Amino acid sequence: MTVQVPHPQAVDWSAGAAYLDGAFMPIADARIPITDWGYRRSDVTYDVVSVWDGAFFRLDDHLRRFRASMDLMRFAPRESDADIRRMLHRLVALTGLREAYVAMDCMRGRPRPDQRYHPVNARSYIAAFAIPYVWVMKPDVIERGAHMIVASTPRIPDVCVDARAKNFHWADMTAALFEAEEKGADNPILLDLEGNVTEGPGYNVFCVTNGVVATPDRNVLEGISRLSAIDLCRELGIPCEVRKVPVAELREADEIFVTGTAGGIVPVTRLDGRILGNDRPGPMAERLRETYWRKRKEGWLAEPVDYDQAAVELP
Amino acid sequence: MTVQVPHPQAVDWSAGAAYLDGAFMPIADARIPITDWGYRRSDVTYDVVSVWDGAFFRLDDHLRRFRASMDLMRFAPRESDADIRRMLHRLVALTGLREAYVAMDCMRGRPRPDQRYHPVNARSYIAAFAIPYVWVMKPDVIERGAHMIVASTPRIPDVCVDARAKNFHWADMTAALFEAEEKGADNPILLDLEGNVTEGPGYNVFCVTNGVVATPDRNVLEGISRLSAIDLCRELGIPCEVRKVPVAELREADEIFVTGTAGGIVPVTRLDGRILGNDRPGPMAERLRETYWRKRKEGWLAEPVDYDQAAVELP
Repeated sequence: MTVQVPHPQAVDWSAGAAYLDGAFMPIADARIPITDWGYRRSDVTYDVVSVWDGAFFRLDDHLRRFRASMDLMRFAPRESDADIRRMLHRLVALTGLREAYVAMDCMRGRPRPDQRYHPVNARSYIAAFAIPYVWVMKPDVIERGAHMIVASTPRIPDVCVDARAKNFHWADMTAALFEAEEKGADNPILLDLEGNVTEGPGYNVFCVTNGVVATPDRNVLEGISRLSAIDLCRELGIPCEVRKVPVAELREADEIFVTGTAGGIVPVTRLDGRILGNDRPGPMAERLRETYWRKRKEGWLAEPVDYDQAAVELP
Repeated sequence: MTVQVPHPQAVDWSAGAAYLDGAFMPIADARIPITDWGYRRSDVTYDVVSVWDGAFFRLDDHLRRFRASMDLMRFAPRESDADIRRMLHRLVALTGLREAYVAMDCMRGRPRPDQRYHPVNARSYIAAFAIPYVWVMKPDVIERGAHMIVASTPRIPDVCVDARAKNFHWADMTAALFEAEEKGADNPILLDLEGNVTEGPGYNVFCVTNGVVATPDRNVLEGISRLSAIDLCRELGIPCEVRKVPVAELREADEIFVTGTAGGIVPVTRLDGRILGNDRPGPMAERLRETYWRKRKEGWLAEPVDYDQAAVELP
């Protein structure tokens, strides 16, 4: 694959580096045509992987999920998984960042004007970027524990938009974020149409009752951080159930926490104004969070960034 | 409001003209930052108005709906409705097009990196463009009558994403377009979760039974072309009911037609392989379609494009 790379010394990569359909560029130059259906019909899937202490976390899992999302949405970009892996290494290398938020998108494109106005006639393509690590909630909120609400807007049902293909259909999430803001809370948790817990903007939800952890099995993105929390429960001998979680169970839980790439494991200390425990992160969430970051520091499922990629002229 | 306008003679406007947050540019230069939540969370509303024979159709209605959509989604761009009207005239004038597809978007923007990662901290802004008229279905399909399917993917419920704010949450529509393609049909019609008719990608749906026209009152965009069809029924003395339309009624209808800005009134001649009438556009659809285009030719609710705007240097 031929790519155009501006000379690394000639441009400022500090704010972030991007790849757009074959070319590398500073993040400020990465723009989507206003007529592209990736924007204009939100006909796009994406994934986000974190880099911490100079290494990707679970990059294999993210690449596997990204490919599955693309297949579900019938995207067939020219890049192989090996191409994408190399591209992501190069993006982080260009920025020199040790902690980074690395996103990869695949979008529909658009038919040529002489073609039928149908997605089968569009050429899908990939965009990606690496920017400084983003916290979905600020570190001080994670320290004190997040204040959440149960949003009045329900999550879009799986049967309408397949949540397994990570997508930008977030109007429900955005409405819920405004509702949380109005109620003086940090963030929302959304229910399905039957009143079961689903997820929030950028995170999966867990609750703990009598020492048993539970997280929803339906109408959620199957998050990689969710998977990490499930793995950690197994490792630590904590029972963890993946099943339907009615909102009543959430409201009566001993502990709540959420998981996401942009923040890891985040304890929740208030729900709709109700204080959980002693208004401090609960013991189970803290144990999982400490174990999570300790293991990441030790190189758990880590793939070191190849920073030499910054200097390589790609073919 | 200060705008930057490249010298009209210096650039090629023939493919289209765009406006992006204060600046005018050729359509190829109108690109959305990859980090903008308008793209990245589909946190955007839009409207589309047509220009036919050198005049906007129902521009007042479109501007009113666009403002209502922006209010619903808490967008407060710096442009007034008068600014937007002037901008749209200028866009069409720059292209010189007599028949144009004119879109206006308002999107969220993005918080600065030092701010909380929440939509309240983003500055919303407007983009717009005029390109050659787009047919949602090709004119030859409209002539023979569209072949439709009832899609197996249901439309996103109103309670999750308010359909009154015109939006790009189209994954359900896109899945339905692929399903139509696989079944050899032109286009899909989507149902709600209870099996009532909603809409299709870019159009509202009408059916005709025993001389009575009916169109859904729920979980649909309140289309301007839908309004035109309702107005025409009133004018022609045709009974038209706006109410719940169960899919059984659609399947047993004498006629079906759809309405949209990109195509006007489009007759349907097949549904899931069943031939309606004699496989030709039905008499009611044809009468409405002929009246629609005759009245538009006569200047119905038309606002002539101010083509002199192309030469004006805006302040």
